[in-house]
Amino acid sequence: MTTTRVPQEERTRVMRQRLMDATVELLVERGFGGTTTTLVSERAGVSRGAQLHHFPTKNDLVVAAVSHLTAIRGSDLEAAVARLPQGQGRTEAVVQMLGEHFASPVFTAALELWVAARTDPSLHEAVGPLEQRVGRETHRLTIELLGVDESQPGVRELVQATLDLVRGLGLANTLGDDARRRRRILTEWARTLDAALRTPEGDEA
Amino acid sequence: MTTTRVPQEERTRVMRQRLMDATVELLVERGFGGTTTTLVSERAGVSRGAQLHHFPTKNDLVVAAVSHLTAIRGSDLEAAVARLPQGQGRTEAVVQMLGEHFASPVFTAALELWVAARTDPSLHEAVGPLEQRVGRETHRLTIELLGVDESQPGVRELVQATLDLVRGLGLANTLGDDARRRRRILTEWARTLDAALRTPEGDEA
Repeated sequence: MTTTRVPQEERTRVMRQRLMDATVELLVERGFGGTTTTLVSERAGVSRGAQLHHFPTKNDLVVAAVSHLTAIRGSDLEAAVARLPQGQGRTEAVVQMLGEHFASPVFTAALELWVAARTDPSLHEAVGPLEQRVGRETHRLTIELLGVDESQPGVRELVQATLDLVRGLGLANTLGDDARRRRRILTEWARTLDAALRTPEGDEA
Repeated sequence: MTTTRVPQEERTRVMRQRLMDATVELLVERGFGGTTTTLVSERAGVSRGAQLHHFPTKNDLVVAAVSHLTAIRGSDLEAAVARLPQGQGRTEAVVQMLGEHFASPVFTAALELWVAARTDPSLHEAVGPLEQRVGRETHRLTIELLGVDESQPGVRELVQATLDLVRGLGLANTLGDDARRRRRILTEWARTLDAALRTPEGDEA
C-alpha cells in the first residue's frame, strides 16, 4: 500500500497543487464566472470536505491559483529564455517569445482574474500587488534579454511599450487565433526597436 | 399631458436607449457577471415587462448594448479627431488620443463583453464580428489621421502595433489609473513611429 507510506505533508502539497491546477484550467475553459468550487473539486478529484479545509471560499482558491499562476509564468519565461539565440536576430527572438508568452493559456487565466478583480475589491487586493510584482519582473527580464541600458533616455519607455504591445496582442488573441498577424507585427516592431535603441535621442528629429 | 403626445415610436426608442445606457453603466460598475436584467430595469426606470418585451434575455440586452457601444466608440473617436492639431506634433496627438480612447469607460465595458464572449458561444457570435468591424474602422481612421501610405512596406504593421499597444495600455489601466505612465510611453512611441515611418524599409539595417 504505497499511499499510506506517502507522508501527510507531501499528500497535502499534491492535493493543493491539483486544486490549483484545476482552478487554472477552469478559468481558461469557463472563465471566472463559470468557475465554481464544485467544478474544481470534481476536476481535481478531491473531496468537497478536503477542498473546503484548504480553501474555504472561491476567492481563497482563486487567489492561491493567482500565486500559482505567477510561478508558472515565471518558469515558462525562463524556459523560453534558455532557447533564445545570441547575436543577430536576438531582438526579434525576444519580442516573439514575449508575444507567444502573452498568447498562452496562462495569460488567458490571468486575464480572467484581472477583469474579475476590477469589480471585486477582495480579489483586487490580492491580484493588484501580484500583477505589479510580475510586471516589474517581466520588465527587468526584458531589459536584460535585450541587453539595453535603461539610463539612456527613451529606453525605459520603449521596453514598457513592448510589454504593453504584447499584452494588447494577448488580448486580441483571446477571441480567436491571431498568431500570423502577431508574428508579422512583432517582426516589424523588432526592426523598429533595433533602429530606435541604436539612435541617440534627438538625432532622429 | 405631454406624454400622450409623444409618438409611440419615439417612446420606444427612448426606452431602448435607457436600457442600453444602463447596461453599459452596469458593465463598467459591476462587470459582466454582476450585470443582471433586474438591475438594468431598476437603473433604467423601465418596468420588467417592458424590458422583457424588448430584450427577452440578458444576452439579447448585452448584444444590443455592444452595438450601442460601437456607435458610442465611433462618435467618441470622431469628436476627439476634430480637436487634433495639424502639422508638427500630429503623430503624438493621434497616439495620445487613441491612448485616451482605449482608457475610457467605453473600453472597459467592451473589455467585459470581450472576456465574457471568450467562454460564451452565443455572445461570441455577436461580439466577434462587431469587434472585427470596429477594429477595421479604427485602423482605417488611424491610417488617415497619421497621413501614411499603407502600401509602403512595414507601415501597415506599425499602425496595427500602435492599436495593439493602446489596447494593452487600456487593459493595464483597468486595475488602476495609469495615465502618467501611458502618456510617457506614447510620447516615446510617437517619436519612434515618426522616425520609422520616414525611413524607407531596409535603410535602417
